[in-house]
Amino acid sequence: MSTPTKYLLPESQMPKFWYNLQADLPRPAPAVLHPGTQKPITPDDLAPLFAQSIIEQEVSLEREIEIPEPVRDVLRLWRPAPLLRAHRLEKALGTPAKIFYKYEGVSPAGSHKPNSAIAQAFYNAQAGVKRLTTETGAGQWGSALALAGQIFGLDVTVFQVRVSYDQKPYRRALMETYGARCIPSPSPETDYGRRVLAERPDHRGSLGIAISEAVEIAVQREDTKYALGSVLNHVLLHQSIIGLEAMEQMRMADAWPDVVVACTGGGSNFAGLAFPFIGHGLRGGGKPRIVAVEPAACPSLTRGQYAYDFGDTAHLTPLTKMHTLGSTFTPPGLHAGGLRYHGMAPLVSHVRELGLMEAVAYNQVDCFAAGVAFARAESIVPAPEANHAVKGAIEEALRCKREGRSETILFGLSGHGHFDMSAYQKYLAGELKDETYDEKELAQALSGLPAVRP
Amino acid sequence: MSTPTKYLLPESQMPKFWYNLQADLPRPAPAVLHPGTQKPITPDDLAPLFAQSIIEQEVSLEREIEIPEPVRDVLRLWRPAPLLRAHRLEKALGTPAKIFYKYEGVSPAGSHKPNSAIAQAFYNAQAGVKRLTTETGAGQWGSALALAGQIFGLDVTVFQVRVSYDQKPYRRALMETYGARCIPSPSPETDYGRRVLAERPDHRGSLGIAISEAVEIAVQREDTKYALGSVLNHVLLHQSIIGLEAMEQMRMADAWPDVVVACTGGGSNFAGLAFPFIGHGLRGGGKPRIVAVEPAACPSLTRGQYAYDFGDTAHLTPLTKMHTLGSTFTPPGLHAGGLRYHGMAPLVSHVRELGLMEAVAYNQVDCFAAGVAFARAESIVPAPEANHAVKGAIEEALRCKREGRSETILFGLSGHGHFDMSAYQKYLAGELKDETYDEKELAQALSGLPAVRP
Repeated sequence: MSTPTKYLLPESQMPKFWYNLQADLPRPAPAVLHPGTQKPITPDDLAPLFAQSIIEQEVSLEREIEIPEPVRDVLRLWRPAPLLRAHRLEKALGTPAKIFYKYEGVSPAGSHKPNSAIAQAFYNAQAGVKRLTTETGAGQWGSALALAGQIFGLDVTVFQVRVSYDQKPYRRALMETYGARCIPSPSPETDYGRRVLAERPDHRGSLGIAISEAVEIAVQREDTKYALGSVLNHVLLHQSIIGLEAMEQMRMADAWPDVVVACTGGGSNFAGLAFPFIGHGLRGGGKPRIVAVEPAACPSLTRGQYAYDFGDTAHLTPLTKMHTLGSTFTPPGLHAGGLRYHGMAPLVSHVRELGLMEAVAYNQVDCFAAGVAFARAESIVPAPEANHAVKGAIEEALRCKREGRSETILFGLSGHGHFDMSAYQKYLAGELKDETYDEKELAQALSGLPAVRP
Repeated sequence: MSTPTKYLLPESQMPKFWYNLQADLPRPAPAVLHPGTQKPITPDDLAPLFAQSIIEQEVSLEREIEIPEPVRDVLRLWRPAPLLRAHRLEKALGTPAKIFYKYEGVSPAGSHKPNSAIAQAFYNAQAGVKRLTTETGAGQWGSALALAGQIFGLDVTVFQVRVSYDQKPYRRALMETYGARCIPSPSPETDYGRRVLAERPDHRGSLGIAISEAVEIAVQREDTKYALGSVLNHVLLHQSIIGLEAMEQMRMADAWPDVVVACTGGGSNFAGLAFPFIGHGLRGGGKPRIVAVEPAACPSLTRGQYAYDFGDTAHLTPLTKMHTLGSTFTPPGLHAGGLRYHGMAPLVSHVRELGLMEAVAYNQVDCFAAGVAFARAESIVPAPEANHAVKGAIEEALRCKREGRSETILFGLSGHGHFDMSAYQKYLAGELKDETYDEKELAQALSGLPAVRP
């Protein structure tokens, strides 16, 4: 038996400020452009979609932004989240590396998503908003916003990608248990949804379409705003609490990571863990390598283009410069639904261009194999998204073994897999396949990127 | 916004000893009888089934029994478990009562079951046992033992009640992810299973049958022992860590319960929370009312007979005096599968006879209504079993409201409902029905209780 161990911050040490990496970057990120004029957008352009305090956070260059007390009050239900040392996994791998993981599955929705949902619901409630619309794939973000809306008295309408709505009814039941309304997308409730359905009545949906529908409703109604679960600066900001806590906990463990590994779809989980460490390095502190892990079937960072693109399919959103597979690209039906997005957070993309991080892509089956190995060693069953980080951490640990180096690896375990056991079942039965995209479709999507004047 | 709050014990204050209520009872519990001779059983009679240290715990009258360091080492992954104040639920109910709950859903299997599974796996591994057999209904216990077996290097074979095996594949996937073998019961792998199948090839199974199968295998093989997830004294002992922590945490909150509420199927969750408080009262400390909540469709404490009966259907187990619906009684297909057992822990039954606790039964639909109200107020979605405790606590809080009393209520939230969202879905769609048993079948099962000489 090895010694554990869990590093728990006392509640009194839960961060009181979020961390904004933009304050420490050597160059600012490229401007966000208005989809019509292609001029940099102004806060006013965003006002139909977001509450004022959220817009301020979106454009803020301040290093520290205070977490409002009512938000901390809710986060305290499960935060500070534990940091754990994966002693048994180290042993199973026979690696001299020390492996730590920050576990976000302790939230009531089972993932890191409530960290931002709670903040967004609070600011909207404070601004007098009555209803939030959003999109969700597998349902992690939708259930997080449903729970946050319930706490702050907001109605929540979730457009869920049709294929997930039909095939994965459990997170939908969770959203509805929290009182949210869940609509399969494309839906007949929006102009855009009707247009898509007219062309293809059996359309299985995509995050890009669901975003278009949620945005359309929010723009139309005075009392309704839109909430996004990843990609945008303010979402990355809210998630920084993960990395801020992890830094304190690494100090408690009397250790510091040589490598930080996190999975990335839209980028909020990755940024949440990694950005505080990157900023610490930029300010002269210990500088770990930073590794983003994405699915080989939806590889925006490793195969996408760094270019201006839309965040949605109907092209209602602003244009942001990001690593993108093209807004018309439809990723294959990965079990890691939370990583199934054509673009990457502009700020993550910028950090990548600055050379402050690495990116790597792994196949679905290999990631599940890593997840099962982790579950058998450490008892926690990771969400399919988190399996990508587990795979990345295991690869780093095996490298350390080959090189005989006892490096310290920190990875983000962004959620538990209790809602995803059907995918594990398939994997264990040998029925899980690696999903692949069509190279021609990708080339086509990339060739259709919007022409933006430099 | 109300102040939270979560009361977290530091790891250093995790209990080092389990608590054995038998040391403080005014009268000892009735003897356990050999099924053949009807003489009190001896430790030797139990040796084919259990490792020596477990048998010693089963018959021990010591007040405190040390938790071995390797067991504490594993429990530390998620323990001490949090105690929380349900401020928002209090507000939603408009009650002057203070509601606290002890949350066991933070374990990797999502319920309190690993508290005993880890201990049982440790003692068996220490005794050189290679394999454990057990039974499971919905799968909470089976997945807990699967995870414990994985940690201590034991093979685990789980006989899962056929109806759950077919209808709820997710906890089965969890057991298999942890490396256990899961067999639908009745199965062709045992004499008893073959007998049942010969009579009724489409038998849906029951816990009683699954226990018979698991016991049969364990008795036959030298390297194999049996593990039970509830009912027996040593299981109740291992679960006492719940109440011991809760007592410390109530002190941290500068409060003491007037009422302790817990759901009860076999009795281990109930005893785990309640027994340390009962013992404290018996030793002259503050004496809360103790309320056990059971499902109206399987009401052993409120409708059963206090009599000697078998724990299984094939009558392989010893005879214990307990509140029982008769070992041939097949409870209806409740969603709270963990509460679906014909008998009650002998020690819980004895405590009931001593007048140290109350019992109440609620219907399934009312319990889900309580669970949804709790989820909307407190963000955590309870397991169907735990919904019974939530219902009990809400009823106490509403009584306090009627009586204008600000009592302190503590209840046990034994697990999360993330594996049970299909039941919530049914409830939300208005399709969930109250299950009822056949009065004639109950009368018949009770009339068939074994004749035991006084």
